[in-house]
Amino acid sequence: MLAGINFFPTVSPAEKSAVQFFDESLELSILADRLGYHSVKIVEHYFYPYGGYSPDPVTFLAAVATRTERVRLVTGANVPAFNHPIKLAGQLAMLDNLSHGRLDVGFARAFLPGEFEAFEVSMDTSRARHQEGIAAILRLWQEEDVVWNGTFHKFGPVTMLPRVHQQPTPPVFIAATSTPESFVWAGSQGFNLMFIPFTSTNEKVAGLLELYRNARLAAGYPAGSERIQMGIHCFVDTDGDRARRKAAEYYADYVEKMIDTWEAYMTAKPTEYAGYADMITGLRKKSLAMLEENSQVYVGTPEQVRQQVAATLDVFGDIEPSMQVNFAAMPIEESRRTMELFAAEVLPAFPG
Amino acid sequence: MLAGINFFPTVSPAEKSAVQFFDESLELSILADRLGYHSVKIVEHYFYPYGGYSPDPVTFLAAVATRTERVRLVTGANVPAFNHPIKLAGQLAMLDNLSHGRLDVGFARAFLPGEFEAFEVSMDTSRARHQEGIAAILRLWQEEDVVWNGTFHKFGPVTMLPRVHQQPTPPVFIAATSTPESFVWAGSQGFNLMFIPFTSTNEKVAGLLELYRNARLAAGYPAGSERIQMGIHCFVDTDGDRARRKAAEYYADYVEKMIDTWEAYMTAKPTEYAGYADMITGLRKKSLAMLEENSQVYVGTPEQVRQQVAATLDVFGDIEPSMQVNFAAMPIEESRRTMELFAAEVLPAFPG
Repeated sequence: MLAGINFFPTVSPAEKSAVQFFDESLELSILADRLGYHSVKIVEHYFYPYGGYSPDPVTFLAAVATRTERVRLVTGANVPAFNHPIKLAGQLAMLDNLSHGRLDVGFARAFLPGEFEAFEVSMDTSRARHQEGIAAILRLWQEEDVVWNGTFHKFGPVTMLPRVHQQPTPPVFIAATSTPESFVWAGSQGFNLMFIPFTSTNEKVAGLLELYRNARLAAGYPAGSERIQMGIHCFVDTDGDRARRKAAEYYADYVEKMIDTWEAYMTAKPTEYAGYADMITGLRKKSLAMLEENSQVYVGTPEQVRQQVAATLDVFGDIEPSMQVNFAAMPIEESRRTMELFAAEVLPAFPG
Repeated sequence: MLAGINFFPTVSPAEKSAVQFFDESLELSILADRLGYHSVKIVEHYFYPYGGYSPDPVTFLAAVATRTERVRLVTGANVPAFNHPIKLAGQLAMLDNLSHGRLDVGFARAFLPGEFEAFEVSMDTSRARHQEGIAAILRLWQEEDVVWNGTFHKFGPVTMLPRVHQQPTPPVFIAATSTPESFVWAGSQGFNLMFIPFTSTNEKVAGLLELYRNARLAAGYPAGSERIQMGIHCFVDTDGDRARRKAAEYYADYVEKMIDTWEAYMTAKPTEYAGYADMITGLRKKSLAMLEENSQVYVGTPEQVRQQVAATLDVFGDIEPSMQVNFAAMPIEESRRTMELFAAEVLPAFPG
């Protein structure tokens, strides 16, 4: 099994300065490279302690690129709806070259109303912008003299520089959470997949993965050629009770920040976002203990986490856990220990 | 005197792969840090061997940030007309934090018609977009709950994350070339300045700098508090004749690539860009030897370059040369030697 680490900053300036957050994340990325982790991922979000420290995943990954040798650098994910395809294609191509071809690109539709409002983009167009942006970027990477006549962008003929290093393109992942259409579309295009089980149930998510894999097969892509990354919180300690207690605290804070972000929009536009109330109630109810019961978190001693990993592989098939090891304002020592114990005592149990 | 190096890639994929270009530029940046240069700068351009390897200056500078300790990282320059202010403010703030406050931000209006066409931005709006973008970014950095109701963007209330590390903001430079209005505006706002003399005459440029300095004084900024960076080609060798011969070759290729970029648009839209013909004729006529005669290049032995530096300080006052040391597809050995000789035998002649 391959495993990676996943930065989804959930800190406010009052808790941890951005200098400290990025110093620590860089240190953990270098550690990931050294300990044999497969990938380092970071998100694109704005404005709120929920992800907002990382409005541009490429900027952080470029900083990681020149301090690491082999770990793959994953945008998890870029949002085409908020970025011009020419700019994003060029920026990602620079990173692919700076890292000597270690870039994996994730694309997401985005889902926070406030982000769409700030960029003056209607959420109703999010799927169309997502698909058009990805298609435009893929053409800019693969072709010269590209003429693009899309719904949202028109340009060309232009030849993008620099050319990407990985041929024909860096691997592309689609971030999908709950919409069956998204899973089918990602599969039918032959893309790789990023998913997050903890906001749903594993049964539902396993069904969505089946849709994805079947769509991929139906489109002629060989079985097993897909790469699937699963976002999951991970906290390992030789003292399992302490791991549960501390992780539960940080996880509660993480969820509270997630909910704050939604509530900000519900307060501003109560009728428009009334449907989000159920989701918030659902999130509030789901403690870390419940995640553990449902195999939706890795927490405890290395032995316990080995069993949890086996359970997720059992239900989801061949996937790469992309692990949040520094959620909320956790001290770096906790993240470092999690990564060291997981690398030494969990990963070796899943060879190949 | 402070001095920096300035990456303006002028290579095609056939001449030098982007992997090689960035490896070399990273190596030269680390060398700059070690040799006591003050700054490393890189441009934003698209599509053509004239600058096109760097569609996103922040991506390259983030890679430099984590391999250097003290050198300042200069975007030279970002183009607000092609970038959403929220995205650019966030991306620059990440770099400011990743580098522990070593960011200097340059903003430019841009001037290549093909870039404006690709981004579907009218060149007629370039000044208004430039000024609105800069103003919006400065507010996003300094204030919380920013509401922006501009001509080109409307958003808010939003609080940008991460917050910038340098307070109240990273130093801001305005790139200006020939329009008096631009120099006066930059001065009246108290911004720092980036200029390039070689496409004009030093007399004209000195006049523009006087406009800038006077506008700055008139607006109440103390004399001498401005920082001015001058873009200039630099090629140093202990054999002065060889320096001139080799630099002339690379410079001719650099100018040819610059002209190719203009001609592409003139061919596509001959009536619209007819006025550029004179500029091209002017550029074609100006050899490296003529630049040297006019103190618009640093070329030759360290002793000769010391005299040239003294001449530019004489005409322009207190400025920081921001030197192109790898123009065209020059082998890295040439750039390395230029940097080493300049640091060892030129810089010490201009203490303080």
